[in-house]
Amino acid sequence: MIYAPPLKDMRFTLDAIAGLSDIARLPGCAEATPELAAQILDEGGKFAANVLAPLYRYGDMEGARLDNGVVRTPRGWTEAYKAYVDGGWPGVPFDSGHGGQGLPWTLATPLAEMWNTANLGWALCPMLTAGAAEALAAHGTPWQKATLLPRLVSGEWTGTMNLTEPQAGSDLGAIRCRAVPDGDAYRLSGQKIFITYGDHELAENIVHLVLARTPGAPEGVRGISLFAVPKYLVGAEGRPGARNDVRCVRLENKLGIHASPTCVMAYGENGGALGTLVGEEGRGLECMFTMMNNERLAVGLQGVAVAERAYQLARAYARERRQGRDGATGEAHAPIIRHADVRRMLMTMRALTEAGRALCYAVAAELDRAKRQPDEAARKDSQALVDFLTPVVKAWCTDTGVEVASLGIQVHGGMGFIEDTGAAQILRDARITPIYEGTNGIQARDLVGRKLLREGGATAARFAALVDATAARLTGELAPIGQNLAYAVEAYESATAALLATGARTPEAAAAVAVPYLELVGVLAGGWVMARAAAAEEVAASPGFRAAKRTTARFYADAILPRTEALETVVRTAGPSILGLAEDAF
Amino acid sequence: MIYAPPLKDMRFTLDAIAGLSDIARLPGCAEATPELAAQILDEGGKFAANVLAPLYRYGDMEGARLDNGVVRTPRGWTEAYKAYVDGGWPGVPFDSGHGGQGLPWTLATPLAEMWNTANLGWALCPMLTAGAAEALAAHGTPWQKATLLPRLVSGEWTGTMNLTEPQAGSDLGAIRCRAVPDGDAYRLSGQKIFITYGDHELAENIVHLVLARTPGAPEGVRGISLFAVPKYLVGAEGRPGARNDVRCVRLENKLGIHASPTCVMAYGENGGALGTLVGEEGRGLECMFTMMNNERLAVGLQGVAVAERAYQLARAYARERRQGRDGATGEAHAPIIRHADVRRMLMTMRALTEAGRALCYAVAAELDRAKRQPDEAARKDSQALVDFLTPVVKAWCTDTGVEVASLGIQVHGGMGFIEDTGAAQILRDARITPIYEGTNGIQARDLVGRKLLREGGATAARFAALVDATAARLTGELAPIGQNLAYAVEAYESATAALLATGARTPEAAAAVAVPYLELVGVLAGGWVMARAAAAEEVAASPGFRAAKRTTARFYADAILPRTEALETVVRTAGPSILGLAEDAF
Repeated sequence: MIYAPPLKDMRFTLDAIAGLSDIARLPGCAEATPELAAQILDEGGKFAANVLAPLYRYGDMEGARLDNGVVRTPRGWTEAYKAYVDGGWPGVPFDSGHGGQGLPWTLATPLAEMWNTANLGWALCPMLTAGAAEALAAHGTPWQKATLLPRLVSGEWTGTMNLTEPQAGSDLGAIRCRAVPDGDAYRLSGQKIFITYGDHELAENIVHLVLARTPGAPEGVRGISLFAVPKYLVGAEGRPGARNDVRCVRLENKLGIHASPTCVMAYGENGGALGTLVGEEGRGLECMFTMMNNERLAVGLQGVAVAERAYQLARAYARERRQGRDGATGEAHAPIIRHADVRRMLMTMRALTEAGRALCYAVAAELDRAKRQPDEAARKDSQALVDFLTPVVKAWCTDTGVEVASLGIQVHGGMGFIEDTGAAQILRDARITPIYEGTNGIQARDLVGRKLLREGGATAARFAALVDATAARLTGELAPIGQNLAYAVEAYESATAALLATGARTPEAAAAVAVPYLELVGVLAGGWVMARAAAAEEVAASPGFRAAKRTTARFYADAILPRTEALETVVRTAGPSILGLAEDAF
Repeated sequence: MIYAPPLKDMRFTLDAIAGLSDIARLPGCAEATPELAAQILDEGGKFAANVLAPLYRYGDMEGARLDNGVVRTPRGWTEAYKAYVDGGWPGVPFDSGHGGQGLPWTLATPLAEMWNTANLGWALCPMLTAGAAEALAAHGTPWQKATLLPRLVSGEWTGTMNLTEPQAGSDLGAIRCRAVPDGDAYRLSGQKIFITYGDHELAENIVHLVLARTPGAPEGVRGISLFAVPKYLVGAEGRPGARNDVRCVRLENKLGIHASPTCVMAYGENGGALGTLVGEEGRGLECMFTMMNNERLAVGLQGVAVAERAYQLARAYARERRQGRDGATGEAHAPIIRHADVRRMLMTMRALTEAGRALCYAVAAELDRAKRQPDEAARKDSQALVDFLTPVVKAWCTDTGVEVASLGIQVHGGMGFIEDTGAAQILRDARITPIYEGTNGIQARDLVGRKLLREGGATAARFAALVDATAARLTGELAPIGQNLAYAVEAYESATAALLATGARTPEAAAAVAVPYLELVGVLAGGWVMARAAAAEEVAASPGFRAAKRTTARFYADAILPRTEALETVVRTAGPSILGLAEDAF
């Protein structure tokens, strides 16, 4: 099998780390029972393994193409998308009022993981569509909610995010696309780049969410509004009609995700693309951020997803490939999984993948709590934790996704460099995840600037207390894990205190160590959820599973958590050195 | 300019770290004066920048092709190779008796760096040729030395290394290729894979060095012999004659180095490829290792070379690309080099590149000392240090090459994922270097098994003393560097002691942490040479250069050396966890 969904670890993580039974007690979540969860994961796993996974390698080789103005996706893409829509998968986390199934994000998360592990280039289309649906659900007009939203929720239509322009990447204030009022609508013109699934023939229409400036709007981000611009104009009966004035003019030639069309989009070459305002004028960035925060969690999950794929591929190769003597028994022509260093690589891959999974599911559950807990203070607390951990999930899980994918190549030796093996594709595909949806540098700036310094470290301290409480609970055979976790909390607290002090005096020096700080928080958060997994009651259900989980958690504590030692020193001391070289001396 | 050779840092490193003036006093090295060095570097730099570098991106796009049994290299390759031969570059480090220029390896090293930075896929051909020439110079018969060697030294012919077979990668004992005596010669048959430049039309002949088994030879590595097998049989007058029974049957489809043909070679499909024995029967692996040790240094240097290219590309982009506000002055649309996190990435790239360069040059100089010092004990000491540091140079410099190439993509943001920028190619190309010439896992096993445990840590202790002596010399403004270096030595000594103890009791647990141990040695060795550079008298010659070097060395001490803290903990404690999971639990 190309991909065997890790259902056992997923179910365990949902139960023990996300607390699915608690989530099911939240208002509106009564359907999210363990039985339904198991059934959904089983069905989703079959779809991912049988339909999506076999297209992954082929999709990379064929790639998306632009033929006479029409974007063609690889063979099999359309059928897979139709099966996805027919299966009702797009609507899982959306309100039943919009045609969704009203299930919690906690349950949608393992599904999205499976789509992405099975076929990252394919899964981007549903991911962007879900993001567009969220933005309309939160900020759409009644017409948009009645007409566009249900078709995104059903998957009949797909959605895109149009932020970037050649001069406006991380700096969205520099956006120049224009939107001129025309009756109830607006006419948009300008160029957008890096538009994922900006065009294709998988669905009968595409709803582009586009950031643009209205006439007379102020400079910078306050002058930016959000618009919904359909590929085909929507008629009175809600059906796609005439072609709108928007087209894909080029596909980018990329390192990876070749199957995913990354489009340069031209708006308004013939008088303006008709669109409708989403939310209020000048509030476009806020509307977009509703969606972007969840997309950031979704991209972090992609990091975990590609790591899982790399791990499964490397594990299979390590069992099959025979080279050299078994280090322990001396047996000749032993499978390379018997070699100590291959074991080290596989354990690193496994531990980072399981830790990333547990962290993503934990934050998804916290998001459901932030949305649905009856108590307002509890909702706020949950939201603060989600806000603090969102950049960490995005950046740390994608960085570790790249690390794991690269280790996957290394396990393959020379064969890892040969494209036929598939290991190289995983690294090529993974490499985009630390870049898109806000580079990991931007995530770190968000963590340190908005989430740490602005609130004086309050949530950071709460997070430390949570981890400390876990560490204190680890006794007996788990005590060594608890001890290493406690050391890591100390490193985190020291780094946090140093950063709070530096940030007050010299913000640039704090910004210079934001990425190592985020990595420290990520390593610690991964250690936290792995420790919780080792100690969870649910782990006892299966002795084999318990032994494996505890061994993996111990490995994480011994081999991954020590990274916090180095990172603490860097955060505490390296700021001035980073900024010390004169610009012209580079 | 696509590539500006870093001549200033190269000359400084040759003088201050390699000790070129000392090398010039060694027997046979009198020509290696600073004046000649400067002239050679200038000329080499022009060739690399003007001839090789412009072909790099194009060579990747066109790639090598197999057309009707003939391997075609990209356009421009042949002309560049001819210019290389006409310039006399292949013979630089070879004895004048074999037609070389008799210059020290110390001087050949920066040249090889430039070829590889300018065009890694092209530079592999000369690299393999030099390796074949070395093997023949050390072990060749009088006929081989008279006929084959001078043509490899001149570059008229090129050379290859044929080790790997489908079932014999890291485990060369499993080689099956056969060599049957036929008069004075042997007839070889079998398949070899991963043969770099195994076929091409750049030169009029190719000398394949092939590992094979003679009839009745013992199992394992003791039954392997080395043969020289020309593509075209060599006539009495030493000219290429009839085609030998060897051909390229397939090119691999690889992640990177697309321009370099990676061949599947078939020997003896029609009765046997004629070859001559190199060295003695059954000693093939020893002969090959003469060459492989130097190739490992050469591959480590490739890591530095690609890092330099990634650094230059990222630096140029960071100066040109404008996004967001200058963190310090608040200026809008500032070049991204003004952003603290971009600065962190560029400093990391710069520091790792300079440290890698200095380490490679230092080891090359030690190699010249090991070959040429009059005193035998001094030669032995130098050789022991070279042996200890060879796997470190190979593995650490290539791992950091990949790290720097990946950072180079990140500096480019979304553009880094677009192939047109060229940043992605550098990562794709770099990714082979931790794999070939012995995977980095094999290097670490060599370091721990052969270089550390077998001699009870003697050279490891000598290395610690060398670094400690450097640390002790750093006073005044350099004291913080010295202090961090001293801490790193402590971490190294602790890890070394732990490994010596573990290795005696449980060799597998030692093998499990061999890679983190090697990384620790690499980080320390890089810190050592950077500290020496900061303290060197030569650095005072230019105030601007001194300030930049000292700032970079300080950055290394503050931001890179702390990695040793985490690695020490891992080496000391993680062995059992790495090996703890049952094989069937993966």
